[in-house]
Amino acid sequence: MTAAPARSRTQRIADVHARLASDVDLWVASASADGDAYLIPLSFLWDGAALTIATPAASRTARDLVRSGRARVALGPTRDVVMIDGTVESLALGTDPELEEAHAAATGFDPRTLDGYVYLCITPTRIQAWREENELDGRELMRDGDWLA
Amino acid sequence: MTAAPARSRTQRIADVHARLASDVDLWVASASADGDAYLIPLSFLWDGAALTIATPAASRTARDLVRSGRARVALGPTRDVVMIDGTVESLALGTDPELEEAHAAATGFDPRTLDGYVYLCITPTRIQAWREENELDGRELMRDGDWLA
Repeated sequence: MTAAPARSRTQRIADVHARLASDVDLWVASASADGDAYLIPLSFLWDGAALTIATPAASRTARDLVRSGRARVALGPTRDVVMIDGTVESLALGTDPELEEAHAAATGFDPRTLDGYVYLCITPTRIQAWREENELDGRELMRDGDWLA
Repeated sequence: MTAAPARSRTQRIADVHARLASDVDLWVASASADGDAYLIPLSFLWDGAALTIATPAASRTARDLVRSGRARVALGPTRDVVMIDGTVESLALGTDPELEEAHAAATGFDPRTLDGYVYLCITPTRIQAWREENELDGRELMRDGDWLA
């Protein structure tokens, strides 16, 4: 199978914006303080600046993301990857009603009706995107929080 | 949207076997000793007992999986998840020619032609599978290395 030609950076950035706007789920990796990895799919809201997820405050994912202050998440299938590293801030329920309403609308899941949940807002600092091996070069699209020109 | 009825355990186990046999890629989470998470898609071979991946020995994924001796990997899209926890053994190139040939055939990628790669064999100890929320109950299909009856 011949891979499609590698996309330009401009095209990849457009594709990343499209996926952030329309995808519902992402993969979230986290790590315990003593180096045990965890992975789970969760739904998210993208508001143009951050990805917001909601998960029980007592879950491994919430505890470890809050502890480390960093997240690595992935959108898309394995051959059309958007890989995002970002900083994490937790947000208690009731803090930002507008964001919480938008999160429920985007995900179809409303933690405000449940006990013990917390929102985690992931602000991207680095974004990469690639499909096949021929797109590994040029996969970096955001660095230190800035989209590359 | 109404979710499909939850699958039986028997059906889920059959679906997991089908995915292990036919999928090419998985998501691999890893963690540094000091609790920094990492995530990357890789191709794999399933030989009926273990998932074998190949990655540079110096990569974060290889170093941290070998250090911890454990991996958490995911197959499938976020709404048809197979989540696997397993033990990790590393295998130097040239150790098992039959496995290495099968890996190259399954993945379309042959690390034997490259420098510095290592195989990592992940033996499942726990397998879960679910599609939507109504399948969270009953998602455990393997425990302590044994398929549930």
